[in-house]
Amino acid sequence: MLNTIMQHRSIRQYKDTPIPQDELNEILEAGTRASTTGNMQLYSIVVTQDQEKRQELAPAHFNQPMVTQAPVHMTFCADINRFHKWCEQRNAEPGYDNFLWFINAAIDALLVSQNVCLAAEEKGMGICYLGTVTYNADQIIRILELPQGVVPVAAIMMGYPDEQPGLTDRLPLEGVVHYETYKDYSSDDIDRIYHEKESLEETRQLLEENDKATLAQVYTDNRYKKEDNLHFSKQYLKVIQSQGFMNYV
Amino acid sequence: MLNTIMQHRSIRQYKDTPIPQDELNEILEAGTRASTTGNMQLYSIVVTQDQEKRQELAPAHFNQPMVTQAPVHMTFCADINRFHKWCEQRNAEPGYDNFLWFINAAIDALLVSQNVCLAAEEKGMGICYLGTVTYNADQIIRILELPQGVVPVAAIMMGYPDEQPGLTDRLPLEGVVHYETYKDYSSDDIDRIYHEKESLEETRQLLEENDKATLAQVYTDNRYKKEDNLHFSKQYLKVIQSQGFMNYV
Repeated sequence: MLNTIMQHRSIRQYKDTPIPQDELNEILEAGTRASTTGNMQLYSIVVTQDQEKRQELAPAHFNQPMVTQAPVHMTFCADINRFHKWCEQRNAEPGYDNFLWFINAAIDALLVSQNVCLAAEEKGMGICYLGTVTYNADQIIRILELPQGVVPVAAIMMGYPDEQPGLTDRLPLEGVVHYETYKDYSSDDIDRIYHEKESLEETRQLLEENDKATLAQVYTDNRYKKEDNLHFSKQYLKVIQSQGFMNYV
Repeated sequence: MLNTIMQHRSIRQYKDTPIPQDELNEILEAGTRASTTGNMQLYSIVVTQDQEKRQELAPAHFNQPMVTQAPVHMTFCADINRFHKWCEQRNAEPGYDNFLWFINAAIDALLVSQNVCLAAEEKGMGICYLGTVTYNADQIIRILELPQGVVPVAAIMMGYPDEQPGLTDRLPLEGVVHYETYKDYSSDDIDRIYHEKESLEETRQLLEENDKATLAQVYTDNRYKKEDNLHFSKQYLKVIQSQGFMNYV
């Protein structure tokens, strides 16, 4: 397993080979073995394989080609709907339509998603997370018919890889791990931690392609712009509210 | 690996055997191989081993004995502080002090945490998530000296198991998986999905111990009460705000 974890690459090119149902079931079972708040399993997984449905989803994911190309699209949702219905049917008054339970349910859903990804990779498949799921959650809710109490928090593509990308760089461990308490970063620390990343040939190419002086500017000016972040922040907060996770306010 | 995933149990009794630093490094490296938004690694891991520090943390985790008994306590934090500092030092204007980036960073941190847990389990260790981390985030921020831009989203205990608990029950797959779109649950569905859980000997004992008619009431009346949920919801939202993830409002 350690090998599977260490060899993870995001896969964006897939063969059209479908995933057999028994394999898919094993992968989904592996998902449900993840730790879950009080064993409440506050999540749902929507498996979308139908080509038309995936074409509907594509614009929400900025039309990345893999959304229609990979055989399986999965959406992991924070879900208090099922638990809420169960409580009501058992003479119990649920008190979970609030932000803490959005967070608890989101945590549950994300641990499941990572188990699912690793189980798939262990079986020779590839996966890729789609960050767009939180950007356009409102569209995804409509297309996947998610009811009150259900909000998407992660989406992945899954299938058999049709590419062999190299391992992506990571910051050195000292850049992300703190012992005992958090030691805030000095400007020397920042220089040291980002040195390797900034020295990569890949980075040099990015600066050239984007006509930028620093890699950080590629992020702030091109990839993840402030105005977009603010727009999608408001949207996602609105979705959490309209799906019933802020009812106490 | 699939076996490690399928055999996961939360461990609450630990031997006092310490985890060797080289093992710990391998586990942490495995954490950093997780998918991360735009390869920004918007997280930090605080590893707390010092006994005094863990005694300080214990009340925030409702004094669960494992917090001081297990050799390692880890806190996984959503972190835009490091990225923000890097941007500023590279003439780039960061726009990440908003809710979307709390969510992105929380997702990053949670995928790392699950990799770390599975890597530890693969090495014969046990882990347990502490749900309390989101309840008392304000205390944890103070004790671990987390700066602006850093919010804890998960905490785990880790060490060599000193118990062998059985596998916890889970809902059948059909209870949590939907195909193509979400199919909302009828009352028959709810009865069928929860039937096995409600028939367990463990459930019968819980009803007796808690003097309740249904398992759902054990949750709503004893374990996770509405008034507590509302209190901790407000606290956590306040923490997200005071740590600088709502600056656009």
